[in-house]
Amino acid sequence: MKKYSFKNDYSEGCHPNILEALIKTNLDQQNGYGYDEYSEEAKELIKREINDSNADIHFVSGGTQANLLVISSILRPHESVVSAETGHIFTNETGAIEGTGHKIHGIVTEDGKLKPEHIQSVLDTHTNKPHQLKQKLVYISNSTEIGTIYQKQELKELYEFCKANDLYLFLDGARLGQALTSEINDLTLEDIANLTDVFYLGGTKNGALLGEAIVITNDKLKEEFGFHIKQKGAMLAKGRLLGIQFLELMKDDLYFDLAKHSNVQAMKIKSAFQNEGFEFLSETFTNQIFPILNNSQIEKLSEQFDFYVWKKIDDKRSAIRIITSWATSDEVVEKFVKGISNI
Amino acid sequence: MKKYSFKNDYSEGCHPNILEALIKTNLDQQNGYGYDEYSEEAKELIKREINDSNADIHFVSGGTQANLLVISSILRPHESVVSAETGHIFTNETGAIEGTGHKIHGIVTEDGKLKPEHIQSVLDTHTNKPHQLKQKLVYISNSTEIGTIYQKQELKELYEFCKANDLYLFLDGARLGQALTSEINDLTLEDIANLTDVFYLGGTKNGALLGEAIVITNDKLKEEFGFHIKQKGAMLAKGRLLGIQFLELMKDDLYFDLAKHSNVQAMKIKSAFQNEGFEFLSETFTNQIFPILNNSQIEKLSEQFDFYVWKKIDDKRSAIRIITSWATSDEVVEKFVKGISNI
Amino acid sequence: MKKYSFKNDYSEGCHPNILEALIKTNLDQQNGYGYDEYSEEAKELIKREINDSNADIHFVSGGTQANLLVISSILRPHESVVSAETGHIFTNETGAIEGTGHKIHGIVTEDGKLKPEHIQSVLDTHTNKPHQLKQKLVYISNSTEIGTIYQKQELKELYEFCKANDLYLFLDGARLGQALTSEINDLTLEDIANLTDVFYLGGTKNGALLGEAIVITNDKLKEEFGFHIKQKGAMLAKGRLLGIQFLELMKDDLYFDLAKHSNVQAMKIKSAFQNEGFEFLSETFTNQIFPILNNSQIEKLSEQFDFYVWKKIDDKRSAIRIITSWATSDEVVEKFVKGISNI
Amino acid sequence: MKKYSFKNDYSEGCHPNILEALIKTNLDQQNGYGYDEYSEEAKELIKREINDSNADIHFVSGGTQANLLVISSILRPHESVVSAETGHIFTNETGAIEGTGHKIHGIVTEDGKLKPEHIQSVLDTHTNKPHQLKQKLVYISNSTEIGTIYQKQELKELYEFCKANDLYLFLDGARLGQALTSEINDLTLEDIANLTDVFYLGGTKNGALLGEAIVITNDKLKEEFGFHIKQKGAMLAKGRLLGIQFLELMKDDLYFDLAKHSNVQAMKIKSAFQNEGFEFLSETFTNQIFPILNNSQIEKLSEQFDFYVWKKIDDKRSAIRIITSWATSDEVVEKFVKGISNI
Repeated sequence: MKKYSFKNDYSEGCHPNILEALIKTNLDQQNGYGYDEYSEEAKELIKREINDSNADIHFVSGGTQANLLVISSILRPHESVVSAETGHIFTNETGAIEGTGHKIHGIVTEDGKLKPEHIQSVLDTHTNKPHQLKQKLVYISNSTEIGTIYQKQELKELYEFCKANDLYLFLDGARLGQALTSEINDLTLEDIANLTDVFYLGGTKNGALLGEAIVITNDKLKEEFGFHIKQKGAMLAKGRLLGIQFLELMKDDLYFDLAKHSNVQAMKIKSAFQNEGFEFLSETFTNQIFPILNNSQIEKLSEQFDFYVWKKIDDKRSAIRIITSWATSDEVVEKFVKGISNI
Repeated sequence: MKKYSFKNDYSEGCHPNILEALIKTNLDQQNGYGYDEYSEEAKELIKREINDSNADIHFVSGGTQANLLVISSILRPHESVVSAETGHIFTNETGAIEGTGHKIHGIVTEDGKLKPEHIQSVLDTHTNKPHQLKQKLVYISNSTEIGTIYQKQELKELYEFCKANDLYLFLDGARLGQALTSEINDLTLEDIANLTDVFYLGGTKNGALLGEAIVITNDKLKEEFGFHIKQKGAMLAKGRLLGIQFLELMKDDLYFDLAKHSNVQAMKIKSAFQNEGFEFLSETFTNQIFPILNNSQIEKLSEQFDFYVWKKIDDKRSAIRIITSWATSDEVVEKFVKGISNI
Repeated sequence: MKKYSFKNDYSEGCHPNILEALIKTNLDQQNGYGYDEYSEEAKELIKREINDSNADIHFVSGGTQANLLVISSILRPHESVVSAETGHIFTNETGAIEGTGHKIHGIVTEDGKLKPEHIQSVLDTHTNKPHQLKQKLVYISNSTEIGTIYQKQELKELYEFCKANDLYLFLDGARLGQALTSEINDLTLEDIANLTDVFYLGGTKNGALLGEAIVITNDKLKEEFGFHIKQKGAMLAKGRLLGIQFLELMKDDLYFDLAKHSNVQAMKIKSAFQNEGFEFLSETFTNQIFPILNNSQIEKLSEQFDFYVWKKIDDKRSAIRIITSWATSDEVVEKFVKGISNI
Repeated sequence: MKKYSFKNDYSEGCHPNILEALIKTNLDQQNGYGYDEYSEEAKELIKREINDSNADIHFVSGGTQANLLVISSILRPHESVVSAETGHIFTNETGAIEGTGHKIHGIVTEDGKLKPEHIQSVLDTHTNKPHQLKQKLVYISNSTEIGTIYQKQELKELYEFCKANDLYLFLDGARLGQALTSEINDLTLEDIANLTDVFYLGGTKNGALLGEAIVITNDKLKEEFGFHIKQKGAMLAKGRLLGIQFLELMKDDLYFDLAKHSNVQAMKIKSAFQNEGFEFLSETFTNQIFPILNNSQIEKLSEQFDFYVWKKIDDKRSAIRIITSWATSDEVVEKFVKGISNI
């Protein structure tokens, strides 16, 4: 029997509603390339949610693809992007952004979040034009790659700084659902749309088989995006597959319910660790937690469960990463909580 | 009620076996990024079919993606690719190949197929090195974009020419199933693997929701392909989605049965047109046919069915394109055949 | 003793005035990167010549560099350029343009010149957006790579067509001097500036050691060009070297005098061939001529002179290319003319 | 009257020997594109100097061009380069390297020099293949951008580390002459050739009008380099201009004499500052020095001389940069030294 895995939030297939919809619609003939009725409907639901009927929405298959598409479509050859060094694009996408010709200025942060002063420091050290690049885009993630989230005031200040400095703001929302349903969150999806120029809503890590919904709200960035999707090999012939999934996810708040579920399960586990007196690498309120265990505790826990040993603290202790998903059941959480009290 | 569409072979969802497999496997936890058990099994089935246990196989989501991945991973910056002007990469993929930095030398052909003399003519007019590019790769499609197929002898001669001239041969198999099950075909999948350096097996146009299986048989081209997949945004977190589909398609020859079905349906329609004395733009034996009708016949037929008017012949007549798929039922073919006799 | 070479127009160094100016200015300290006083002065002279004080002018070292800089700075990733198949960028620059990510649509022409109907044919066969590229730029050369030149009416019609179709027009002027001083020319440099969006004035093939002057007249294309120059490695630390040369060339019409000289020398040779009854591959009025000789005549002539055998006509005859330069002396022309009458 | 400038080492033209050679050779007809006799001879002299008759040598016009050519010709799309953050390619070439598709991993150093442990730290944090890039090339400069130089033992250790880790080592020698003639240097040009895979010898900053000599000693990197030169627009039609210059510079050690002269002049100024008790931002032994002055001293000195204020130390003091060249005369140094004692 396989051990239950807390290694990531894309270990299972998809929410059953999606499978049902795939069966129900299977033989219905539809236009290709995203012009199917399901995609159109799904876009309408998202537009309603963000209260912007003029937004441009495009469904693509994954996060790296969304990132490289958005960034390469916006920047001219001499323009660059600013990101936290923990940002997914910086070292976890095999140079996808540089592969399209653009430098990423990496910034060391405490919590994975960018602040205006971070961006300002890059601007200040790149004044020797045209020998130095022109910074044009800021990339952030919410929730971040280390599980933290932006507060409304933080995002507002960042966006105002960007506008004041002629920079676009792009938000990677691979785990946006988890961010927006975190217990400490004060942002809505509409806020996200208002406080960025472009963002995406992650499906892959929140109940879909695959799919991210790129939402472009800044008119200047909308033009001719379809060409880029096709050129980068990101246009599915059967775009219906993406449309059907987002249609199901956006119906009746399923998207947010699934994300909330994953957060709740993680928080239960966090409490269990806290109750036993464990410390954490960072304080998170989404579906990722990083408790610090000693080596024998890690060994014991890993007899029953799979997870990543994330960072060595010292010779005796390491932080592990526990990540939950829309599919993490109460049973498995209870079993894991029991496992914690046993170590 | 919608008209039945013969516009393309990706209007429906997927073969029911795939949906069943998705349901059955849905909550099984699997590794991400193509390291799941289904992908492994599917690769084994393909290797068995081509009788090459050392082949490298990678599943990606679509044809343009497969084309740009294969070509950009092989070529160095100063190397170019030769293709028929009807080749899909030449003008139908928004410059995806040039977007990765490489020129395509386009060749005018009669039937969409490349012959050694075509390639030779490019080599002959590019001898002024290093002011002219180094040709390094030949791209062909089977079946071609205009429905024709390669005979074994033709492919053999082409591959021998390529090897003699230090050129790689890459076969786009978006509709390879249809080619290999055409009534005039004399090639097997094993032949395809033996007579090319790399090819792909199309799923999207033959019963899958999405997916192409890139098969690399030349050892020199295998190395580090995974980096390219990730860099180009083509690596699905839930690679299981592709694995499950190819596993179902490769079981019990389903892949070939579906392709054959689409061919048979097209040939029935072809016969019906022939019986009524219609001519064709080109003689095809796969799932695409190009009958020439007069304008009033086109108008009449389009009252009941959707299809593309492909090419104007003269003021009175045009060729239309009728394309069938794994999902084209006998009923709809009969209805269409009746429609033909009525015009 | 070396044979005199008519192989190309860049076999010698540079006009003596340039050497004198280099000596005279040698120890004068100047700003780097094109901000020296000589470059500024040279730009002023060119602006005066084209009667456009708002033009942006940049000096770079060669033609391929000018071409790739201009084209890659203008086009977004999904945009393409249209060129004659004889255009220098199409097959003689090692894929420099595709290397920056852009397709060149090649057009077969009779005389190396593009007409509106040529461009229209490309637009007509690329209407399936976004699956096909967006054409955005037209590239022409004057004089063309085969020695022909544009008449004012032709250029006017082409530019009007471009403007009507939202296309930019870029003129490669590697041999613009020769074009504008041809006996059949009716264009001025000011006309060139008025009837294109951007062009360059070639120095390398007209008396400079190196250097082309890119002239941007369309405001939309001016912005931030300097970044591109630096990024592509085309910005010389000692930009004075380019400035000094163009300053000398633009003084007292030296640029035009040198070009005219090369034309006149070629025309003398052309007459000599005509007088002897020879035919030509194409009728040219600039510094390139393509007389057709039989094999023994070619052999005899090549005992004394170097030149390229350009194109085989039949088993007995080939066209040769004779190209003259600013440095081709009367003595050598006379000697060559005598050589002709001896064969 | 203009103030004398210590702003950089490319403010003047070139060494008079070069001008004389240009005059002497001016009307001699030569092959284009680097196949002239002068280039051939110059290459022979360099090969003799490094004692490697199999080295491949290519002359190009500038440092950024040399850097992007070498790096982009070596790396495949998924490979990256490691550099000090002070490295010229990191932020001073407008993203030229990223523009060719490759990430630069920047390393914070104390003195601008890379050590094996720096590279190891990058390797250690990029083990998650293929999601992270493959490091393949190490870029260093000698002298560095902040005036420091490598000792033989340091370079040896670095190169051994590179070889042990399947990394190429590329040395940017824009100021290699200055490094090799520094009073603390213990490396020869032959050592440089033996302890790197490819390097270049800078002409622009050491007495040439323009030109860098790329020297490839590793056989694997030699193949087909000419294609890259042409594709990137770096191939001069009149390659003679580069050949003649390097021929003059390599004759009778002129190259080293000029570099030594620039060092000696800088060291005289350094002594003068030291004698007056000034401190320095970093200890350098080449042609760049960074004395720390208070604001009124800076103001006073700048009445007579031009230089860059390099880095603010505190509200009262800044480091300035004084850079000397092959052309800096004894007179101007004496005048400057007097200026120092007056402040």
